[in-house]
Amino acid sequence: MQKFKFELKKEDGKARLGKITTAHGEIETPVFMPVGTRASVKTLAPNEVEEIGAKIILGNTYHLYLRPGTKVIQKSGGLHKFMKWDGPILTDSGGFQVFSLGFGAKDQTSKKLVKIKEDGVEFRSHLDGSKHFFTPKSVIQMQKEIGADIMMAFDECAPADADKDYARDAMARTHRWARECVEANKKVKPLYGYEQALFGIIQGVTYKDLRVESAKFISNLDFDGVAIGGLAVGEPEKVRNEILETVEPHLPKDKPRYLMGVGFPQDILNAVERGVDMFDCVLPTRLGRNGTVWTYRGKLNLMNSPFINDLNPIEKGCDCYACQNFTRSYIAHLLRESEILGIRLTSLHNLRFMMRFMEDIRNSIQENKFKTFKKDFIKKFER
Amino acid sequence: MQKFKFELKKEDGKARLGKITTAHGEIETPVFMPVGTRASVKTLAPNEVEEIGAKIILGNTYHLYLRPGTKVIQKSGGLHKFMKWDGPILTDSGGFQVFSLGFGAKDQTSKKLVKIKEDGVEFRSHLDGSKHFFTPKSVIQMQKEIGADIMMAFDECAPADADKDYARDAMARTHRWARECVEANKKVKPLYGYEQALFGIIQGVTYKDLRVESAKFISNLDFDGVAIGGLAVGEPEKVRNEILETVEPHLPKDKPRYLMGVGFPQDILNAVERGVDMFDCVLPTRLGRNGTVWTYRGKLNLMNSPFINDLNPIEKGCDCYACQNFTRSYIAHLLRESEILGIRLTSLHNLRFMMRFMEDIRNSIQENKFKTFKKDFIKKFER
Repeated sequence: MQKFKFELKKEDGKARLGKITTAHGEIETPVFMPVGTRASVKTLAPNEVEEIGAKIILGNTYHLYLRPGTKVIQKSGGLHKFMKWDGPILTDSGGFQVFSLGFGAKDQTSKKLVKIKEDGVEFRSHLDGSKHFFTPKSVIQMQKEIGADIMMAFDECAPADADKDYARDAMARTHRWARECVEANKKVKPLYGYEQALFGIIQGVTYKDLRVESAKFISNLDFDGVAIGGLAVGEPEKVRNEILETVEPHLPKDKPRYLMGVGFPQDILNAVERGVDMFDCVLPTRLGRNGTVWTYRGKLNLMNSPFINDLNPIEKGCDCYACQNFTRSYIAHLLRESEILGIRLTSLHNLRFMMRFMEDIRNSIQENKFKTFKKDFIKKFER
Repeated sequence: MQKFKFELKKEDGKARLGKITTAHGEIETPVFMPVGTRASVKTLAPNEVEEIGAKIILGNTYHLYLRPGTKVIQKSGGLHKFMKWDGPILTDSGGFQVFSLGFGAKDQTSKKLVKIKEDGVEFRSHLDGSKHFFTPKSVIQMQKEIGADIMMAFDECAPADADKDYARDAMARTHRWARECVEANKKVKPLYGYEQALFGIIQGVTYKDLRVESAKFISNLDFDGVAIGGLAVGEPEKVRNEILETVEPHLPKDKPRYLMGVGFPQDILNAVERGVDMFDCVLPTRLGRNGTVWTYRGKLNLMNSPFINDLNPIEKGCDCYACQNFTRSYIAHLLRESEILGIRLTSLHNLRFMMRFMEDIRNSIQENKFKTFKKDFIKKFER
């Protein structure tokens, strides 16, 4: 069976062209990974996700553990078979969801949903209030049951406004849990006969010295890749860019680097420029469900009145099913009528846009033209 | 350009095997027509509607007139191009919607939405309360703008509990309007270069003498097909069957016969047995959106708890994308999570079920085995 592998093929400045090999296929990097939180990339069927050129998708351990439960998935022979996606899958460890339930909430009631202990986290389900306890070991066990090609270590994602003492404590827990995940991974055999890779997560909020410490610590453990967590949670672009620059020299060159939760095209360009290889974000589908579509000339909201008479496709030159077959007029009509085909078409287009965008990024690195591509892209594309 | 044509190929008792030819293709009858009220068969893309074997779909003049407006559709070159469906389309005239707005409502406020006049009907939009007036002529004009292969005459669909005097008046208006529709149809040229057929509608509530009178009147006008309206609105199965039997001898053999709004498999069998060729209904997609699926062994509600652990397809032997790829377990999970793919798969399966069911009906007529088929089917299938 194919072992997990990363090959760094080329650099253009800090921007990297690479290839990840997993048991379920190869992934050219930089890559954007569509999010299928609950075992479905929202509104789309797996054959459509494949047709738009997605090579790897995300699942979420927290959600899948609560419903349908990892045992149900195991009964089908793992998430690939359950959802009929034969390509690589990465699962988030659930850390972010567990903590965003507590810290993301503004009121005291919600904070009580989460209790952080040194050996793990107790939380209540957002669905029914039932009590659960996640540990590094249990999170690895669940991801083995899910059968992800790439598993994520369990981390504590401290809030963006955490003070330094808290940030340091959370980082220390994250590091201890990272080590425990590596140990647990060695002990629990894969259930489905293929190797599952494990990535560590760097934390440290916006404190540069903590981020450097975390980068060094995580990079030195026996992980197959390194993720940067706790960003894209509201910090200014400048701050995020500085953290990426601070962290980058401490990251191993021979492992893929994953900036979690980042998906705005401009943010992806900033991160690729600073040596990041992997991205995920719910934005393409979430915006699509609001009627917003991305094009190389910026975004359009098809709910705006002129589009009902617009016989152009969403984006000229786009090869997606939506652009090859339908006018803005028709899609605008569907969106106004809350016809589900409308949000299918906008979601499909936005994800295909991301795939074309990432391909263009990779081509520009191949040709040593990443900086020019970035400049030209940003000139035309407004957020 | 291909002219509208109906060929009666075979009879098995009163059950008929036939073929309709339209400018956009041929239709084997008996046929079930999926409903695409607002220019979309709910949750599905046109390539999927084609893949499940649908040969003709419905649109609705009332809804399309209100939004996006027939002028928007005309700008795209007609409904076929607007929604990218290259097969035949039948449009309802709007009569049923206009009247169900008024009579369907239980309270006085809603009744005021509709004012029936001798030359047409004034109504208020259910969307924004704006005032509109439909006449036989305007309804033909709109259906020309939409570009339906089969247009329906404007009729008054009286309520199931109307007294005989009212039923007679409504029928008389329907007959006068039918004549006006035939006249209007001759005067308004098709806009898109192909011939558009026109069907008349028989009314008369549940009064057999009125139904006979209406059948004779409508059958003698220059229509391409004859529809039976005002049924499937809550009358007992026995009453509907009797009306069909009473009407049938007065229908022309050489025109297709369409029972509007009927879609329960058992009801279709009853009507085919009584000489009906065409059916439409929103049930397959509406039930699908509630998690209910049809199989030859009856219906299943996938929201019921055992299905989350059921690794069977919805229906063994079904060739639809849902059954070929996914387990009840996965689809049950999607439905519980309100993931849109869930209702796409149930809608797709239910429509594919209807297509297989109609094909089996046609084959049984071909082999002079319709009665046996009906008996065997009903034995297994519970409503």
